Amino acid sequence: MKILISGFQPFGGEAINPSIEAVKRLPKEIDGHEVIGIEIPVEQYTSLKVLEEAIKMYQPDVVICVGQAGGRSAISVERIGINVDDYRIADNAGNKPIDEAIVDDGPDAYFSTLPIKAIVSEIRKEGIPAEVSNSAGTYVCNHVMYGVSHMLRDTDIRSGFVHIPFLPQQVSDKPQYASMTLEVIVQALTIMIQTTIHTKEDIKQSEGKLD
Amino acid sequence: MKILISGFQPFGGEAINPSIEAVKRLPKEIDGHEVIGIEIPVEQYTSLKVLEEAIKMYQPDVVICVGQAGGRSAISVERIGINVDDYRIADNAGNKPIDEAIVDDGPDAYFSTLPIKAIVSEIRKEGIPAEVSNSAGTYVCNHVMYGVSHMLRDTDIRSGFVHIPFLPQQVSDKPQYASMTLEVIVQALTIMIQTTIHTKEDIKQSEGKLD
Amino acid sequence: MKILISGFQPFGGEAINPSIEAVKRLPKEIDGHEVIGIEIPVEQYTSLKVLEEAIKMYQPDVVICVGQAGGRSAISVERIGINVDDYRIADNAGNKPIDEAIVDDGPDAYFSTLPIKAIVSEIRKEGIPAEVSNSAGTYVCNHVMYGVSHMLRDTDIRSGFVHIPFLPQQVSDKPQYASMTLEVIVQALTIMIQTTIHTKEDIKQSEGKLD
Amino acid sequence: MKILISGFQPFGGEAINPSIEAVKRLPKEIDGHEVIGIEIPVEQYTSLKVLEEAIKMYQPDVVICVGQAGGRSAISVERIGINVDDYRIADNAGNKPIDEAIVDDGPDAYFSTLPIKAIVSEIRKEGIPAEVSNSAGTYVCNHVMYGVSHMLRDTDIRSGFVHIPFLPQQVSDKPQYASMTLEVIVQALTIMIQTTIHTKEDIKQSEGKLD
Repeated sequence: MKILISGFQPFGGEAINPSIEAVKRLPKEIDGHEVIGIEIPVEQYTSLKVLEEAIKMYQPDVVICVGQAGGRSAISVERIGINVDDYRIADNAGNKPIDEAIVDDGPDAYFSTLPIKAIVSEIRKEGIPAEVSNSAGTYVCNHVMYGVSHMLRDTDIRSGFVHIPFLPQQVSDKPQYASMTLEVIVQALTIMIQTTIHTKEDIKQSEGKLD
Repeated sequence: MKILISGFQPFGGEAINPSIEAVKRLPKEIDGHEVIGIEIPVEQYTSLKVLEEAIKMYQPDVVICVGQAGGRSAISVERIGINVDDYRIADNAGNKPIDEAIVDDGPDAYFSTLPIKAIVSEIRKEGIPAEVSNSAGTYVCNHVMYGVSHMLRDTDIRSGFVHIPFLPQQVSDKPQYASMTLEVIVQALTIMIQTTIHTKEDIKQSEGKLD
Repeated sequence: MKILISGFQPFGGEAINPSIEAVKRLPKEIDGHEVIGIEIPVEQYTSLKVLEEAIKMYQPDVVICVGQAGGRSAISVERIGINVDDYRIADNAGNKPIDEAIVDDGPDAYFSTLPIKAIVSEIRKEGIPAEVSNSAGTYVCNHVMYGVSHMLRDTDIRSGFVHIPFLPQQVSDKPQYASMTLEVIVQALTIMIQTTIHTKEDIKQSEGKLD
Repeated sequence: MKILISGFQPFGGEAINPSIEAVKRLPKEIDGHEVIGIEIPVEQYTSLKVLEEAIKMYQPDVVICVGQAGGRSAISVERIGINVDDYRIADNAGNKPIDEAIVDDGPDAYFSTLPIKAIVSEIRKEGIPAEVSNSAGTYVCNHVMYGVSHMLRDTDIRSGFVHIPFLPQQVSDKPQYASMTLEVIVQALTIMIQTTIHTKEDIKQSEGKLD
């Protein structure tokens, strides 16, 4: 199996973006399956363009996108992406859409096709705070989640989005914000990939048995 | 120099208490100075009794007490301990005082004699969220902070209190709570000890020069 | 025009439910339009049954459902209802579905057809905290929002959901929770109805001009 | 009995300050006792100067100071004022002291001499969220609380401080902040005055009986 996992480029004048830092630190292979990390820009549509090309090139079985949700204290596995771009701040290309559809005449939303409850459960078993989140917001993270879901709607490629907290060094002088170390985040993403692989293997095996 | 540092015993049916776990993991020597870790009970007065005996036995130059403040997201270096026991839940010995003075006719409060601003600044430099806190609450943590300050009021032994966040494994299924790994907490406590030592050395040296 | 607005019955042993209390206090007529308040049970499907019957009986032009989101500090106008029942606690009939579809083969979500941004803007103009919310949760509130949207999908009846904060008296001894008085909530709901009416009138007039 | 109660002048470019607005709306007489409201500046020391002159002029039995703590959701009756000025932002006169003693050689802190627990209990009975707070911060509010306590330390005049939340209109577009209407705040301050009067009367009567 092949897993394509994306992180975002640095954003808003920041030197690093924890999502791509975490993705870079993932092993190239997990439980015998190939893990391909890519970087995508914090830009409406261009982010999806890069993902689309990578999906064509690598033909993955699973697509996971990772973004940061500053202020959250747990790994947040998103349940749903919604068909709206409503940005409070401009993206890296200067786009600041208000209440625009991502896909004209697209459905209002797409559920993640990852095993989100199993992922949260397995991450928690390793002592890492995790939750299912019911909103990925209305910024580029949601844009990517909805856009990839739409792109893959008629395939059996599974996809979804996960939000990660601030790194400690990002908020060392903002004591009101929760944070999580890069090591713990990488561990959580690894568990997320493993859980997705094994759930998909189970499904394939059970489908095989049915034949 | 000798640093005495205390952590609390497990409390309220929990198997471990992160404060004593962090204290146990500190090196026995930091920058050539002896670090003595002790465990104290989550009990009104008995906690102070154990500290008093350890102070008599070890004759430390610095006393730091560590406790947990579940829900805080940063290392919280306490500024002040106040002369009141006002417990919302009973301590481990079943005491549940309401608005009792810790020391009858004691002053209303004692400021920490640690270099709290310098400690916060040095911890932040290492990328760890830290803050000065203006309230240690009215439970056993504050009891210990006030009690030790009172005990040492006429000595040149410096003392203070620091609150630490939950560990990730304590709140893996409570995603609304912030957490911090034991490794990061131990690193922060080490910096706290170093900063206190060097500030005290500076003072001693400048006092020496004045002679 | 006719506006049907629902509040929930008391729930979980509470004597009152602020949502129905607010609905009861609305005037019977706003700006010359009829306002019909009804009470619905905090129960999966039965809540929708009662709403369906009321819609048949009253033939409203607008359906607004009101629920409580304890802990929020502002009037929260919901953007979207999603096709999932995932209850952390049982409803009043003892149902506790986990990850069930509300409507089998229904779309993943429906956007509110109320003018949510205009509503928030008008409520704020009167000095009342308000926001667009991107998640109505996965409990009976979301059940009702999604269910009504599905029911009305092929009509030109507009519908949506709004969450209200705790009343002060519900959290007088829980100082960490925000609250809002019933008077302010009723004022906000009145503005919500007015804004919806006038937006719909504008649309009808502009449609009229096109003829 | 005479009650002197202060509110702060507008601050930081704001047109109004809710603390003085609430104080202005108090009745001139509560339960037969005179209530004198005064306005004080948001300035280190000048605030205390104005209070000192008012105390000399009016010879009150009780002094209550009111300030705003934006972000808190309940009426916060302060337990203690501490001997430190540590301002994150400058006051209205441009002072921005860091870790300065308010009173050189003053004690580290003073407890409020108001019946704080009874006040919180009575306010809650009327359905208004209230709490005892263990920190008035280190800004002008704490400055005033500590300063007045020090001024009155050898008298039998009771004094204390209470923090109030934002008004709704201050945070209408900041939905993350809790708020409380002016009417509810005025009601809470009235209850606070009544409770203080009656507690003081009880003490005087019981002292009478002992003679």
